[in-house]
Amino acid sequence: MDIRKSVITAAGQSQRTLPLQTLVDRDGAEKTALQIIIEESIMAGMEEIGIIIHPDDETAYRAAAGPHARRLQFIPQHTPLGYGHAVLCAKEFTAGEPFLLMVGDHLYVSRSTIRCARQLVDIASRESCAVSAVQETHESKLPHYGAVGGTRVQNRSGLYEIRRVLEKPTPTQAEQELDVPGLRLGHYLCFFGMHVLTPPVFEFLEAAVSAAAGQSPVSLTSSLSKLAQRGRYLAAGIDGRRYDMGVHYGLLTAQLALGLDGDQREEVLSLMVELLAARAR
Amino acid sequence: MDIRKSVITAAGQSQRTLPLQTLVDRDGAEKTALQIIIEESIMAGMEEIGIIIHPDDETAYRAAAGPHARRLQFIPQHTPLGYGHAVLCAKEFTAGEPFLLMVGDHLYVSRSTIRCARQLVDIASRESCAVSAVQETHESKLPHYGAVGGTRVQNRSGLYEIRRVLEKPTPTQAEQELDVPGLRLGHYLCFFGMHVLTPPVFEFLEAAVSAAAGQSPVSLTSSLSKLAQRGRYLAAGIDGRRYDMGVHYGLLTAQLALGLDGDQREEVLSLMVELLAARAR
Repeated sequence: MDIRKSVITAAGQSQRTLPLQTLVDRDGAEKTALQIIIEESIMAGMEEIGIIIHPDDETAYRAAAGPHARRLQFIPQHTPLGYGHAVLCAKEFTAGEPFLLMVGDHLYVSRSTIRCARQLVDIASRESCAVSAVQETHESKLPHYGAVGGTRVQNRSGLYEIRRVLEKPTPTQAEQELDVPGLRLGHYLCFFGMHVLTPPVFEFLEAAVSAAAGQSPVSLTSSLSKLAQRGRYLAAGIDGRRYDMGVHYGLLTAQLALGLDGDQREEVLSLMVELLAARAR
Repeated sequence: MDIRKSVITAAGQSQRTLPLQTLVDRDGAEKTALQIIIEESIMAGMEEIGIIIHPDDETAYRAAAGPHARRLQFIPQHTPLGYGHAVLCAKEFTAGEPFLLMVGDHLYVSRSTIRCARQLVDIASRESCAVSAVQETHESKLPHYGAVGGTRVQNRSGLYEIRRVLEKPTPTQAEQELDVPGLRLGHYLCFFGMHVLTPPVFEFLEAAVSAAAGQSPVSLTSSLSKLAQRGRYLAAGIDGRRYDMGVHYGLLTAQLALGLDGDQREEVLSLMVELLAARAR
């Protein structure tokens, strides 16, 4: 399966300014968060990038994309009807092809030399089906994530066949419905914030948007659950970490993670130590 | 001397996006850097705030000012003719009153319970003359700052009468012209990024802008030097630190400094430790 289109969502009210923030990337260069996300996508082999934005944000995003602005197609979400609706806005852009879906408010730091999005796209290409990136997550963090249950794919470490998808399950729900053999006790497979999805997801999203009739927000999760019922849909453990810039101190944490992972680790360590020393006097 | 107007400069090409960045302030609240600077000014007793901006930035700055937008007067700098020219744009706004001048790309963390700008304004009110905030700085950092030479004010710790002002002097120049009795060896009084200035500064700036005739940028320093020749002009050591957000890792450093100084020090310390541990595995 050939994956060459990427969709980045950034229209959510609380996320709109996050991609515009300035950070220092692993290579020591100053970039906006948007540039870093776009580069994650380009390094995964994506040729066309569609970005779902609030209709007022195109000028600011175009400026924030810097050298990558030419590669972007801006897709306005005219009514804030939830994350599922935002993804549906990309139907025309993806034009029947599978696509890499990423959120605009997360940054990813791989633990290997292969970027997180690249790891995911490689697996989806090989398996020729929809694959969601997941991370083994302690049940105390279930309130923050979508989570999946299923079975291990034989002889393939870190690969699972998804049977169920639940948005922010309670520990009880998770225990009853999202058990995955072989995980550490009290741990579940939670979404990592990137997926490779296939065109059938739009059918389910269209049905969900119709059913909601503008009265309630449409999630992506319920359509992913239907995708799992329809056919083969995998979850892949990614060798890396995700940083949600939208949580309290999220930008600081993401910046420190990039800094400690990069070429300028020593410089970042020494500024941490210097600040601690200055404050201690 | 009554000081109730503040001027913040933010029109410089490399500084324009810095005040729009999101940070967590000492109180744990998310704010833009602009909000934090405005609050520094409000806490110093300022009633009217004029902000010198690039003509294209008013909408973004108005949004970034949040609850303080009503207090702001936006003053566009239509041609980028240097920092001195930017300050001159505030002549009409200040209308013959002394004013607190702050740069839009620095954040300040006081070491006492009194904010940095408040410390400066209190001294200027008492002394009834122009006062620049300064910090004892090692000669290795002279290339980054304006610096002053002069004499100690008798019986007043941390207060100096300014004789000379030089922009980014060499160590040799500093040794010859900026000696201040009683400082540590190899240390000089460098600007801290905030001043209380009096109306005569605009005469000198107008003359400098005329002389430059749009052919070279106009600095503030040369006019401050003339201010020192004209009459009493003091330098005051501030009990605190300045963080230039515009340098490499400047935002990260400023954010860590705010975090380590504030109510959520423990949270910031633990996220630092967690990241170090995650990276070490």
